[in-house]
Formats: sequence, C-alpha cells, structure tokens
Amino acid sequence: MSYTLVLLRHGESEWNAKNLFTGWVDVALTEKGRAEAVRGGELMKEAGVLPDVVHTSLQRRAINTAALSLDACDRHWIPVKRDWRLNERHYGALQGKDKKQTLEQYGEEQFMTWRRSFDVPPPPLDDADEFSQVGDPRYAGLGDELPRTECLKDVIARLMPYFETEITGDLEDGLTVLVAAHGNSLRAIVKVLDDISDEDIAGLNIPTGMPLVYRLDENFKPLVRGGEYLDPEAAAAAAAAVANQGR
Amino acid sequence: MSYTLVLLRHGESEWNAKNLFTGWVDVALTEKGRAEAVRGGELMKEAGVLPDVVHTSLQRRAINTAALSLDACDRHWIPVKRDWRLNERHYGALQGKDKKQTLEQYGEEQFMTWRRSFDVPPPPLDDADEFSQVGDPRYAGLGDELPRTECLKDVIARLMPYFETEITGDLEDGLTVLVAAHGNSLRAIVKVLDDISDEDIAGLNIPTGMPLVYRLDENFKPLVRGGEYLDPEAAAAAAAAVANQGR
Repeated sequence: MSYTLVLLRHGESEWNAKNLFTGWVDVALTEKGRAEAVRGGELMKEAGVLPDVVHTSLQRRAINTAALSLDACDRHWIPVKRDWRLNERHYGALQGKDKKQTLEQYGEEQFMTWRRSFDVPPPPLDDADEFSQVGDPRYAGLGDELPRTECLKDVIARLMPYFETEITGDLEDGLTVLVAAHGNSLRAIVKVLDDISDEDIAGLNIPTGMPLVYRLDENFKPLVRGGEYLDPEAAAAAAAAVANQGR
Repeated sequence: MSYTLVLLRHGESEWNAKNLFTGWVDVALTEKGRAEAVRGGELMKEAGVLPDVVHTSLQRRAINTAALSLDACDRHWIPVKRDWRLNERHYGALQGKDKKQTLEQYGEEQFMTWRRSFDVPPPPLDDADEFSQVGDPRYAGLGDELPRTECLKDVIARLMPYFETEITGDLEDGLTVLVAAHGNSLRAIVKVLDDISDEDIAGLNIPTGMPLVYRLDENFKPLVRGGEYLDPEAAAAAAAAVANQGR
C-alpha cells in the first residue's frame, strides 16, 4: 500500500503576470490562472487521482485554485482545511517590487540570493508598509509568529509542523490529499520529501497549475523521487520558464 | 449581546434557468447566478456583516455561491464546513422534470401540493434513474439515510440536528455564521427560527443571492422576526418572482 499526496501550485496570479514579488500580498488569479486551475482539475479527473480532502493556505490565489480544480474533477464537496503555515514565503521588503527592476538595481548575485538562497531572507517589511499583513484579521491569532520576511529555511520551520500532523494525519487515514499552495511552500515540502540539499533546492522550480503526485511509503518516503507530474511534458516546459523570471 | 446568522440561497442555477425541478441533482450556477453570489458578498462587505465561518451543503451551486460571495467580501480564508444535511430538499421522481409541464400534466392542486405542502413528498425517485444519487461517492456514508424523496418536514428532521449542534455551536463561540444553502433547506431553518406554522410556511419564498441576516438572542430566538435582508427592496421583488415559478 502507499499514500497519495497531490501538490498543486496556484495558477498565474495578477502579480505573476506583472512580474512583481508577491509573498503574502493577497492577489487574485488572472483569467489564465483560472484556466490553469481548471486544467489541473481535468488532469486529476483523467488520471483518476481524486482528492478526498484539500489543504490550502489562507491566500486567495491558492484557495481559488483549489476550488476551480476540485470543481473540474467533481470533488468540490470534499472537506476543506486552511492554514497560514501553507502560505507563500514572505518576501519581506521585496513585496510589491518589480522583479526585473530589482535585478537591475541590486545585480544578479544579490537578486539570486534573495530569490533562491536557502537561509538568507530579504530585508524585513516595515509594519507601516502598504503591503504589510499587520492588522489583517486572518492573521490576528499569530502574534509574534507573524513573519516580516522569510527565507526557505523559515518556511520549512513553520510549515513542517503542520505537514507532520494535519497532512500526514489525513494520509494515514487513507485519504488522497490535495495541497493547493505556492511556489515556495511547495518547494519546502518537496525538499523534505525528496531530501534535497540546501544547495540543490535552489535549482528546483515548480510550475503553476500542474498536479504533482507523490506516492509515499509507510515512512512518508516517495516511491518515485521527485514525484510524477500528471502532464510531464507541459510541466518541464513551464518549470524552465519559471527559472527565467526576471530576465 | 446577540448571535449573528446569515442565510444565503445560491444564485440562479442552470436548472433554475431552465425551470426544471432540481433537488439533489448537482447542477452548476449560471453566469447570472455567479454574479448574484458576488453581489451577495458585496452586500455583506458594505453592511460590515463579515462571516467568521461558512457552512454549505455538498452541492456545487451552494459551494460556489459561498466561494464567490466570500471572495467578494475578502473572507475567502475563513474555515469551511460542509454537510449533506444542508442539501436542497430531495424532489423524488420530479427531479429533472419541467415545472411548467408538470403543472399542466398534474394540475394546479397536485403541483402546489408537491411544491409547497409541508408533509406530502413527491413519489420516490427510482435508484436506477439517471438523476438518482445512489452510487455518488459523497453520499457513500449515508446508507439508509440517503433520501429518495422528501417533503419539507423531512428536511427539517434531517437538518435540525446539524443546526442545533454545528451551527449553534459556532454561534455560541461568538462567530458570525454564514449558511450558504438552498431554497428549501433555508425555509426549514426559517420555519424553526420564526416558529412559522405548517400552513404559513407554504407562502414563504427565499430569493437567490440575497443575504438574510438574523440576530438571535441567547435562546436562538430572532430579535426581529423574519430577519433582515441586506437589500430589502430587491429581496421583496425577487421573492415575488419565485412564487410565480411554473406560471
């Protein structure tokens, strides 16, 4: 026997389309992003990989991706769980900044450090900034845990306690689990599942709207390292495009 | 102090638009229905009536109405609870039938008995019928509780145990509760809340996409009988239109 975990990165958001750093800013999906989510659901339906429960972040682009993909595979009625621990990496003071402009201003090395280094976060976001989450009712219970910036290491630290209780709990109950989340919260999960080094994770990009299926053994180790995309050719092309953002 | 309960009937569905009896058949919203749901969310936002938790049926038209309205009032991230006990009344052998044709075939008296009598259900739906829910995975756990037809009395019997535990439990926790459901499951709740007689409930119609706000006292009795629509003029016009269906 094996457990089935499906990872789904949200479709294109308004700020993906504008090439801005987003992080915890709660932007909407574009029409293209909505179509990607529906396509993701159709792929699950065609493959017969049908979620029994869905976990999402507290962010609109992941929530709506989950809803659209589940509607497309007739699983709109399954239980829903949401948690801030599945949110995108907080991008600190870069939130709202143009990626290309940031690359030109700070240079390739600093840009790539902020985007892909494992343990160097961007400068923190000021609480008075228009893109701060201080005062947002959905995070009112977080207190000092509310991030002002995060590196991938920070994301793993806040995400894995949720993964190791709520998500593995549902897997242990024999449920097919869909996690609808973000580029970096999903990279955090994949890094742990596939035991990827702090260096190698920099090169891993997860495309939007493509269901990534992990079959896990009784110790939650992948039967196939890296999992399997339901549409592998499209996933490879899309991952290459993500890697070139800011160029 | 008082509790705040918001009732929201799903927006126009494909079968509302075609004037067919729907019941447990899982039809989608029309574009108009989606717009109604968004408008319902905008009304909640304008009124400052912001749900902390949402309860829906297991049916697409209520689930998507909840998602669209909550997105419109920036409460897309709240906890979601779904239960079959909030489903529409099962319309038995009438499911999939044209309302106008049924009126002509069976006459005004039989038609109104099926539509509005408190305790006379339509003939049961055959398990082999294309519109049967036997075999639908979302109802697999129901066993003998799966209805083949229902009158409003049956809806109250299966709905109120959920209302009196899950919904009142959330109200007692001080949460503003949104219930996104159906014409008859909401009539069931309103009948009990307002203590409407078995005869008078026949004349009560709930319009689609209009948030109906009940402030309840510590015994869950309405402070204002009948509650308050956030857009009362539009609600009155829409309720009159519902009453004329089949004409």
